Amino acid sequence: MSVKTTENGYLDGRLRISQPQRGYRAGVDPVLLAASVTAKTGERVLELGCGVGTAMFCLAARVPGVVLTGVELQPDYAALAELNAECNGIAARIAVADLAALPGALRQESFDHVMANPPYFDRAASTAAANAGREVAMGEATPLDKWVEVAAKRLAPKGYATFIHRAERLPDLLASISGRLGSVEVLPLQAREGREAGLVLVRGRKGGRAAFRLHSGVVMHDGATHAADQESYRPEIRAVLREGAELSWG
Amino acid sequence: MSVKTTENGYLDGRLRISQPQRGYRAGVDPVLLAASVTAKTGERVLELGCGVGTAMFCLAARVPGVVLTGVELQPDYAALAELNAECNGIAARIAVADLAALPGALRQESFDHVMANPPYFDRAASTAAANAGREVAMGEATPLDKWVEVAAKRLAPKGYATFIHRAERLPDLLASISGRLGSVEVLPLQAREGREAGLVLVRGRKGGRAAFRLHSGVVMHDGATHAADQESYRPEIRAVLREGAELSWG
Repeated sequence: MSVKTTENGYLDGRLRISQPQRGYRAGVDPVLLAASVTAKTGERVLELGCGVGTAMFCLAARVPGVVLTGVELQPDYAALAELNAECNGIAARIAVADLAALPGALRQESFDHVMANPPYFDRAASTAAANAGREVAMGEATPLDKWVEVAAKRLAPKGYATFIHRAERLPDLLASISGRLGSVEVLPLQAREGREAGLVLVRGRKGGRAAFRLHSGVVMHDGATHAADQESYRPEIRAVLREGAELSWG
Repeated sequence: MSVKTTENGYLDGRLRISQPQRGYRAGVDPVLLAASVTAKTGERVLELGCGVGTAMFCLAARVPGVVLTGVELQPDYAALAELNAECNGIAARIAVADLAALPGALRQESFDHVMANPPYFDRAASTAAANAGREVAMGEATPLDKWVEVAAKRLAPKGYATFIHRAERLPDLLASISGRLGSVEVLPLQAREGREAGLVLVRGRKGGRAAFRLHSGVVMHDGATHAADQESYRPEIRAVLREGAELSWG
């Protein structure tokens, strides 16, 4: 492949993830997403828009024996996901495909969990990124509603779809989930105590009938402001990021 | 009027509110609703489903000179609202009307703020209350969507509609607000630290264009469990309930 890459450590170096040097680069979001997926050993997990595979591999590090399938539109990223799976000794099937037009074989399958970190920026209300790969990963070429529709379709009965997204898209995400999934839960992620949520984890269950739940917000950092020279993650978030711990839905 | 009533003190006794002895009786919810409405002196405020007027009169106690209009379907409750206005020396116009069919005069008016504490129980998924007045006040004879539609219609440009509702109805409330109001904000209310939200305050602005905001949850009580013999409200909530303080949107 022709893209220049760099390798980054995740989960205190247990995972080595190669990413394009330029373009979309994963932060902590896929780690948090994986931490919130309550998959068990042997369960089938589909990630839509898996990129270089960070969320899938974090999940596999916590739950050995999950059966991973990743769908990624961009061949360069998908190739890196394959490479990362191999380097980390994790089995994963990567399909290069548009999630809106999954290969026939995948459309025959169902999954216990679907997870996704859809693009964060609605292009109708923002400016395109100069780097094309970054633009596809961050711009919303495929509407959010399609992500939710495909996730819901691919779930087995009682399966969970889990999404991480910017808090400002919560109404859209809930609207897309409505009528497709039940037992919907929101876990707000706040940078600091008292701050509004920056991100939300949202999950719904296929055929779920429980009432909607808005959980208490998870605070990421101690202190009121960022200190550049200090590790400020709260212990429970540090456990997620460093040790690959589960992030509880409360 | 033929209904037996009792009188309760609100805001540390500054307000005396007569309510039916049986039937729907307001708790702290209308006090919290009023505390979250950012009305200023001289502004026009409409309450949909005002009941005996608790929220309106709490608001007037904090913001002298607000111009109050309450709409109440049940004549007994509306009569008590009139009585309560008089007893507390607060000017308020009370209209006995179905909010889905407001009198022509009201349909000509617009308001700087609309507030509502819509019935909490969706009758499709629950059992009717034995007391008829309680049932109308708590059951959802008028769909939630209609409450939001009427609120949005009666708002002046840049006016705010503020709702308090059970957290489990948040998705429905957001869906009803979508396309009618902008700059939507959610303030979760949690009984205790770390607990999921029981209630939500939700507001939207007519013509607002700001991104959706999910604020940090407001915790009502100190401590992990309820102690029957102790006042456990946190200081900022006690200030709202006892002194009529404003509840900040953060």
